[in-house]
Amino acid sequence: LSQLAAHHLPGRRLVVISDEHVSAVVRHDLSVDRLTFPAGEASKTRAEWARLTDAMLALGFGRDAAVVAVGGGVTADLAGFVAATFMRGIPVLQVPTSLLAMLDAALGGKTGLDLPAGKNLVGAFHQPAAVLVDPLVLATLPEPEYRHALAEAVKHAAVADAAHFDWLERHADAVLAREPAEVEQMIRRSLEIKADIVEADEFECGRRAVLNAGHTVAHAIEAASAYRVSHGAAVAVGLVTEARLGERLGLTAPGTATAIAELLQRFGLPTQLPTELAPEDLLAFMRADKKRRDAQLRFTFVARLGAVAGDQRTGWTHVVTEESLLTVLGRR
Amino acid sequence: LSQLAAHHLPGRRLVVISDEHVSAVVRHDLSVDRLTFPAGEASKTRAEWARLTDAMLALGFGRDAAVVAVGGGVTADLAGFVAATFMRGIPVLQVPTSLLAMLDAALGGKTGLDLPAGKNLVGAFHQPAAVLVDPLVLATLPEPEYRHALAEAVKHAAVADAAHFDWLERHADAVLAREPAEVEQMIRRSLEIKADIVEADEFECGRRAVLNAGHTVAHAIEAASAYRVSHGAAVAVGLVTEARLGERLGLTAPGTATAIAELLQRFGLPTQLPTELAPEDLLAFMRADKKRRDAQLRFTFVARLGAVAGDQRTGWTHVVTEESLLTVLGRR
Repeated sequence: LSQLAAHHLPGRRLVVISDEHVSAVVRHDLSVDRLTFPAGEASKTRAEWARLTDAMLALGFGRDAAVVAVGGGVTADLAGFVAATFMRGIPVLQVPTSLLAMLDAALGGKTGLDLPAGKNLVGAFHQPAAVLVDPLVLATLPEPEYRHALAEAVKHAAVADAAHFDWLERHADAVLAREPAEVEQMIRRSLEIKADIVEADEFECGRRAVLNAGHTVAHAIEAASAYRVSHGAAVAVGLVTEARLGERLGLTAPGTATAIAELLQRFGLPTQLPTELAPEDLLAFMRADKKRRDAQLRFTFVARLGAVAGDQRTGWTHVVTEESLLTVLGRR
Repeated sequence: LSQLAAHHLPGRRLVVISDEHVSAVVRHDLSVDRLTFPAGEASKTRAEWARLTDAMLALGFGRDAAVVAVGGGVTADLAGFVAATFMRGIPVLQVPTSLLAMLDAALGGKTGLDLPAGKNLVGAFHQPAAVLVDPLVLATLPEPEYRHALAEAVKHAAVADAAHFDWLERHADAVLAREPAEVEQMIRRSLEIKADIVEADEFECGRRAVLNAGHTVAHAIEAASAYRVSHGAAVAVGLVTEARLGERLGLTAPGTATAIAELLQRFGLPTQLPTELAPEDLLAFMRADKKRRDAQLRFTFVARLGAVAGDQRTGWTHVVTEESLLTVLGRR
């Protein structure tokens, strides 16, 4: 880490920001000031952002500072937003320690805070100076958290790379056993896919929409369940549900939903909507979803494994009627 | 305004943000939601930013929203930061109503909040979708505020355009009388100069430093006087003081400081350091200035009217010893 920081952040005075749990267990070779915050999504607040900012100022950090964010998705978002706004923006080096953050949160520049009205309602796009992924830190990640994160790896393969989807099917057991070589290969390919998409669309104006595959339904599941369903589990169900919807609309090749569901099941992930969530409730949350534009429900559909439906002209999205959606949501 | 908004922000749901004073007196043709905040620099707080963000959410604004910031520099900074961070950034249309905001704050994308520890310590670079300048609204601007803002017009001419400096000398009386044609010409040229510099260096990594001419001393004067000296008056004194320093160091052509001082005096602006501010106190504030890098004092010097000293290699700045600086600061 110290070598990477010296290379990507030359001359910068560094501060490491982590939650208290990660700070206690993750060792690294940077001897710099450290700031911590209580572990958990509940720390993604304006108050915690203000406290970390004030702590940096009290320590004398200036425009020549840089943040090293060591932790999971909450840290990437919170410490990333501190960096995005400190004296109008200082560099951040992301060091994800959860599989979900390695596959998704650390790359792409999205930072944000939650408000009482919803998640990530304030934030900024702030690309990291570098992302350091060390798969060995995953050794101690709890099993459910590890498995649920695999939904994002499946998503990356489903939207962009049929060969990688095939590779995941063939190496599912090694991935589940956290074999270092296979874990590294899986993360590397996910990061390559995501980097390609983000580079083409840094500010989420177009092609980046393909990364939202599965996520319209997933966000509704998370919200309707009051976040009792994890993000990864919700994405797994969302990917399958949206693929079924795409098949129904003739936008997704028949059999795609089943192929996605089978791979997710090998990873121990759910693929059916929780029975306690009513289709109407899910629809209500989708109506309120912040990604909605021009008062219509839009989805990004997998056309076939490794490719999405639509193009720049359609914004890689398709409008779906509430009727079609309710039919698929109601089919359990 | 409605035509400009329709052209630059098509399909966006607009909110107009102004301070209470401007909201009461400035008329425009947008029939949209309006949010206000108490007039004055004291509103550039995290609390006011949070209140405005929450008010937008309560009104149902989403990612398809855009902010129209109508007001002076405080509005440009505060409403601009609301836009920069609302759902990771929505467009902002800047409508400056003070001369200082027209010449400087509305263009360039700097947004920010003040903290107890100092001004603009959090913020973001967020370029406006458009800037609408209507010089007619200046008719009611108080005379001191109008005159003090002229320091920024003098700065733009001094760093980038000798012909414009000459034009300002020849049209000083018309500018002071707020003749619409001359006021418009002056603002237009300042905006062209600033836009050229900002386009070449959006994130203040290099050439944008030339816009800081006069500002190292100016920020120290503002801070050391507890902000009793206005920004414009401080910039006027800063421009002359830094030009004298440049002449002493052989970086600025002899006579430049006097030429700048004479034009500023025609505009009724101060050119001498306030006697109650001790050189050592000013130096202490410069040491703490957030623009300082690598523990050295750096200044951008006017080489001759219309040009700055240095180039990309030097970052358009020069290191100055505290000794040289104290000598010039002590000469009243």
